[in-house]
Amino acid sequence: MGKIYVVSISSGNILDMSNRAVKAIRDSDVVVGYTGYVSLIEELLKDKEVYSNSMKGEIERCRYAIKRAREGKKVSIISSGDAGLYGMAGPIFEMAEDLEVEYIPGITAAFLAASQLGAPVMHDMCTISLSDLLTPFEVIERRIKSAAEADFVITLYNPKSLGRINHLQYAINIIRLYRRDDTPVGIVKNALRKNQKVIITTIKEIDYDLVDMSTVLIIGNSQTYIKDGYMITPRGYKY
Amino acid sequence: MGKIYVVSISSGNILDMSNRAVKAIRDSDVVVGYTGYVSLIEELLKDKEVYSNSMKGEIERCRYAIKRAREGKKVSIISSGDAGLYGMAGPIFEMAEDLEVEYIPGITAAFLAASQLGAPVMHDMCTISLSDLLTPFEVIERRIKSAAEADFVITLYNPKSLGRINHLQYAINIIRLYRRDDTPVGIVKNALRKNQKVIITTIKEIDYDLVDMSTVLIIGNSQTYIKDGYMITPRGYKY
Repeated sequence: MGKIYVVSISSGNILDMSNRAVKAIRDSDVVVGYTGYVSLIEELLKDKEVYSNSMKGEIERCRYAIKRAREGKKVSIISSGDAGLYGMAGPIFEMAEDLEVEYIPGITAAFLAASQLGAPVMHDMCTISLSDLLTPFEVIERRIKSAAEADFVITLYNPKSLGRINHLQYAINIIRLYRRDDTPVGIVKNALRKNQKVIITTIKEIDYDLVDMSTVLIIGNSQTYIKDGYMITPRGYKY
Repeated sequence: MGKIYVVSISSGNILDMSNRAVKAIRDSDVVVGYTGYVSLIEELLKDKEVYSNSMKGEIERCRYAIKRAREGKKVSIISSGDAGLYGMAGPIFEMAEDLEVEYIPGITAAFLAASQLGAPVMHDMCTISLSDLLTPFEVIERRIKSAAEADFVITLYNPKSLGRINHLQYAINIIRLYRRDDTPVGIVKNALRKNQKVIITTIKEIDYDLVDMSTVLIIGNSQTYIKDGYMITPRGYKY
């Protein structure tokens, strides 16, 4: 019987993958994913059939994974971070009617990035994707406003692509209505991958040119501060 | 030179830990943690000095970890889920002035739970802890209201303890002001541990007696639905 593993590959570095994720890929006949992510896990792909394509090829990838599983193959479909946040778990569970599906969780980008900044999250947090390919921008805007108002630590995913270079600045301007000018912001590009770049700055000094699709931004809450090069959000303990 | 690893142990099952987390613990002389979490990783603790204590012993644990690291030891201080969300990363970075600290990220409870429910998160999400030990309940209440209003998928952490048995019901009643009665709710106790329990229900039918401190609840957004025993939040793809 075929089976689909929806595998969260975290940073894509084997060190950050769970043992369950590595095992699932090793157990698979076929590995399906975005070309950029497949190349991160090359060392696991010897003797595997690999099907990869580009961004916006998500549904095609799901269809292929389901087809091969129906033909009796074990198929891993991979997502970076956790597959259950803006990843492949959703479309697979929506489409894979009669197949066995196992979703293997992983480390989502917010925490990969956090680990390189100090302890920037720590308290109630939210994630918001700035991609409006699948979500009306009014919905995104409302969420940014609510999250800023209620003092959540906010991680912004998909902050920029060629088609939308101004969404990030627009989002930050909304958040600034509710946060101090010196609110710390952590910017992490390629977290725990080759070419990682880590910047700790403030909300009024963000360098927008540094940001691309492989970047997440963590915006501190009203209590977040910078100390010794670390970004720290207190949980509230007294020392 | 001593060093502190802040290690996220995810579910506590070695299968869910990252290879980086396992390596850090193997590399440590001393392992520090809440008694309940230390017992989950017993197989990694042979020949280690272990310091554990009970809930509310967090600061004592940090002090001990820092003391032993200052004495030249390699020390792992562990948190379940991701140590950077309601865990030990914060207090360690706040207190460990002159020490080398490495925070190793992991899978936070929201995604451990999600993986057992289908694809309940998928879209913009937030986490809110209902523990008011360190946070005024008014702050928590405001976040619940904002998150519900802005249609985030909401994961509730620390939903119940002996001292606060009604907070959860109070929180759910706020959320119900903004969500349909049949909004799906996933309840997962001991995610990916022994004695795991998984329930998919609706917001009006939550059985509050099932919930304890080892439980998280994932409340769907306005689009979440139940299909074939899975809880699914669509990302917005057309098929």
